[in-house]
Amino acid sequence: MQERELIEQIRNLVGENCQQVLQGIGDDCAVLKKNSETVWLVTMDTLVESVHFDASWHPPELLGRKAVSVNVSDIAAMGGKPCFVLLSLGLPAGFDHAWAKSLTTGITSGCRQYGCMLVGGDTVCSPEKVVLTITVIGEMAANKVLYRQGAKLDDTIWVTGNLGSAAAGLALFQKKEPQLLVTYKPFVQKHLDPRARVNLAEILAQTGLVHSMMDISDGLATDLSHLCQQSNVGARVIADQLPAHPLLAEAAKHCADDPLQWMVSGGEDYELVFTAPPRTEEALKKLARNHDFQLFPIGTIVKGNRVVLGKSADMKDDEQVISYQGFDHFS
Amino acid sequence: MQERELIEQIRNLVGENCQQVLQGIGDDCAVLKKNSETVWLVTMDTLVESVHFDASWHPPELLGRKAVSVNVSDIAAMGGKPCFVLLSLGLPAGFDHAWAKSLTTGITSGCRQYGCMLVGGDTVCSPEKVVLTITVIGEMAANKVLYRQGAKLDDTIWVTGNLGSAAAGLALFQKKEPQLLVTYKPFVQKHLDPRARVNLAEILAQTGLVHSMMDISDGLATDLSHLCQQSNVGARVIADQLPAHPLLAEAAKHCADDPLQWMVSGGEDYELVFTAPPRTEEALKKLARNHDFQLFPIGTIVKGNRVVLGKSADMKDDEQVISYQGFDHFS
Repeated sequence: MQERELIEQIRNLVGENCQQVLQGIGDDCAVLKKNSETVWLVTMDTLVESVHFDASWHPPELLGRKAVSVNVSDIAAMGGKPCFVLLSLGLPAGFDHAWAKSLTTGITSGCRQYGCMLVGGDTVCSPEKVVLTITVIGEMAANKVLYRQGAKLDDTIWVTGNLGSAAAGLALFQKKEPQLLVTYKPFVQKHLDPRARVNLAEILAQTGLVHSMMDISDGLATDLSHLCQQSNVGARVIADQLPAHPLLAEAAKHCADDPLQWMVSGGEDYELVFTAPPRTEEALKKLARNHDFQLFPIGTIVKGNRVVLGKSADMKDDEQVISYQGFDHFS
Repeated sequence: MQERELIEQIRNLVGENCQQVLQGIGDDCAVLKKNSETVWLVTMDTLVESVHFDASWHPPELLGRKAVSVNVSDIAAMGGKPCFVLLSLGLPAGFDHAWAKSLTTGITSGCRQYGCMLVGGDTVCSPEKVVLTITVIGEMAANKVLYRQGAKLDDTIWVTGNLGSAAAGLALFQKKEPQLLVTYKPFVQKHLDPRARVNLAEILAQTGLVHSMMDISDGLATDLSHLCQQSNVGARVIADQLPAHPLLAEAAKHCADDPLQWMVSGGEDYELVFTAPPRTEEALKKLARNHDFQLFPIGTIVKGNRVVLGKSADMKDDEQVISYQGFDHFS
């Protein structure tokens, strides 16, 4: 049984949304009515030691910040502003006090970074591994929420920054060659201490130009597949247009990895992927210039239900399906 | 380092509450301003396999219901109405699908039981043990919230039902004698499938008679100590007045355990403990009769910062301090 099947099963058990719930299971956040103009966004994510992080190389303070960032990124994914954080912290008996203190310092520093406040949670004994669950509550105008659903035929697909950097960082740590971590510091940084695109997301939501949005946590292929499935469309992504850090290809060589695979299937970049009609392209580019951030068009929403990767905008052959399964090998 | 120290450390890192936060870390729920009349209550609790439950005897459907109940109980602890639930479910690779399905059925049935709705969360791979984290969001009138702080000198201390039943249930399972589970079914039930006192809590909050309240999850001694610490008072609990199921003493004999220890230190009863001025005693008793529930006066708020257990109302000697450490042995 895969994660998607389990979630589908739970979703079926829940049934219809009630009036106060504008969005239940199935998007980056639940969307709850606060009043006629405002909604609350609620998200919850867990990081498990040895599944989601390696405590042997992840400095606890950065791990704490990351745990906040990955959750805040779900608020950004809908265009909201994060406000409140709850933390459930599972620590093994006899945990290292200095380590735990650094972790909690990182969590509160992460909260401050996004202007939100830790308001509650609990601490539990965990049998062996550290487990961090965080809930973030955000807020935004009800009529500006950007859902996964909403992508329209011919929409341009955009991403907000380089892809594959976090995957590169992880691969570099796994190589266990300290010099590589110095040479490729930007990737290391992205893996250890990613930033959620909150400000940019708020600006995008305000424009009213965007049809659908989500964050890239599980990799472009998987996350874009979610967006397409919920919008009942397909997508064609163009490999040549995917943005990458200039050192990505070189780092991939050192790791005997494929940089395109990192960009397409690597998770944890926490950039945003969104779609908007082609006529808004100039307006979005101008917005990016004015606010000093970058936006990259990477493909187009198409008919059907497949997400495919083509080599360039012109060549229609040589396409490969990358829906969910991620990217196996680009030939 | 104890749980309390770790929480204190986190609390110090967080600093002052902002205007929207009426209560941050330190009570059963965070209390957030929804509008001028209404607040949202938010709580989060984790259950870890082999720490908080034993999957070998806990039927998954009841475990799911219990996970919801223990969180909803925190909403009840402040007098609120539970509305929305988020679930983070950690399952080991290769988990039993039928077991997981029953668990999620239990979670949704638990939500329905309290009239609330599962709106989101996530699923993760856990290295070995099942981990269930639940967030519940509740709602109530801002001016009716019952905090831990607020207990006043001479207040009567009340509980809403039998104590020690859940501890008895746990002890009976640990004996591994199937016949005991049949004989003492009420305790088994309380351990496997406790109910949060939501309706009763809402009624109590509406009266305006109650000074302070919380739920009993970690045992009367520890939880009353929290309430006293935050109210800057002490408490005198009278052993003879503690309510118990008629079969408790007999069950304790079978387990070679002390029934008073179960009542004072046993956790997971999920009854409420609250304080109210002595002059309200008749009104509260009448309320209980009218609504067909039970309330038991068990002691008095006193000066100082200690929680003591006396044998009877009259005898002032023979008192034992039970603050936090729980109850070791009653002589």
